[in-house]
Amino acid sequence: MSRSPGRKQENHKISRELFVLTYGALVAQLCKDYEKDEDVNACLDRMGYSIGIRLIDDFLARSAVKKCRSYSETADVIAQVAFKMYLGVTPSVSCSSATGNEFSLILDKNPLVDFVEELPAERASLCYCNLLCGVIRGALEMVHLAAEVSFLQDRLKGDAVTEIGITFLRKPEDRKHRRN
Amino acid sequence: MSRSPGRKQENHKISRELFVLTYGALVAQLCKDYEKDEDVNACLDRMGYSIGIRLIDDFLARSAVKKCRSYSETADVIAQVAFKMYLGVTPSVSCSSATGNEFSLILDKNPLVDFVEELPAERASLCYCNLLCGVIRGALEMVHLAAEVSFLQDRLKGDAVTEIGITFLRKPEDRKHRRN
Repeated sequence: MSRSPGRKQENHKISRELFVLTYGALVAQLCKDYEKDEDVNACLDRMGYSIGIRLIDDFLARSAVKKCRSYSETADVIAQVAFKMYLGVTPSVSCSSATGNEFSLILDKNPLVDFVEELPAERASLCYCNLLCGVIRGALEMVHLAAEVSFLQDRLKGDAVTEIGITFLRKPEDRKHRRN
Repeated sequence: MSRSPGRKQENHKISRELFVLTYGALVAQLCKDYEKDEDVNACLDRMGYSIGIRLIDDFLARSAVKKCRSYSETADVIAQVAFKMYLGVTPSVSCSSATGNEFSLILDKNPLVDFVEELPAERASLCYCNLLCGVIRGALEMVHLAAEVSFLQDRLKGDAVTEIGITFLRKPEDRKHRRN
């Protein structure tokens, strides 16, 4: 028998291809289970949410990120730390509203679709990567940030880039603070 | 807008926790879809097989592994290169037959069950990680090695370790060569 690795040698880094193919198997299974794209999208979002509320602890422990002081800083951390850590890519971030609570994460290349050529014609409304929206929403909720997260553009649907929109929902206290 | 990463900066390494949680969502969905554990196990194996036959190209390209000259070398490559690359762990390998075609990969720690406490009582026959058996089987088939792959022990079921058994199926030509 060859040597057995000790716990200290444990390495959290992996190549992403097995993940990407496993995610594809998950989406394919949901497409078997649900006839309507909307139902697949909603299911992926729900699954992602459940993942996000668990993943946040791992993220905070591993990243050693401090509390963000603004929505803009939060969006940057999601793009530059979280995406890098879990998907190996760094989207660019743009602020898409004058009110400063809407952001876009723009992916030139989306690793989750590495093995996907195109959506089948009968699945034109599928948000293939909708799990990611749920993950972001769930993780943000656990740090007391309510947000709406959805795909605004998708290269799988012929758009030039893939764009995830994050709208931070202002809390009543925020408004009060602002008035003071 | 912050800078957009060029393709050359692309990094295939990711933290495995998002993968592990996504895999959990897949298994949970299959448990909703199929009443019998055997059906879930078979489905995971089939999915894994489809993944393995695609993943092998990525593996060969990335690992630069040369053609193996024996079953023993093949088992070592699976444990020390493939598991390390895609799951971040290195199982120990033991040869479990005098005929030299049966091997065990022994995992002290199985990262795929990081977030799983125990199997629910009504899912006692579930092979939670059966996808891995299919992946190994599919990948081996693509390099012309027929094999049976299955879980022999599973810590999730109370065993001391998790053990994946690989039995290489000898080809008729092998036997002929041996006679000559």
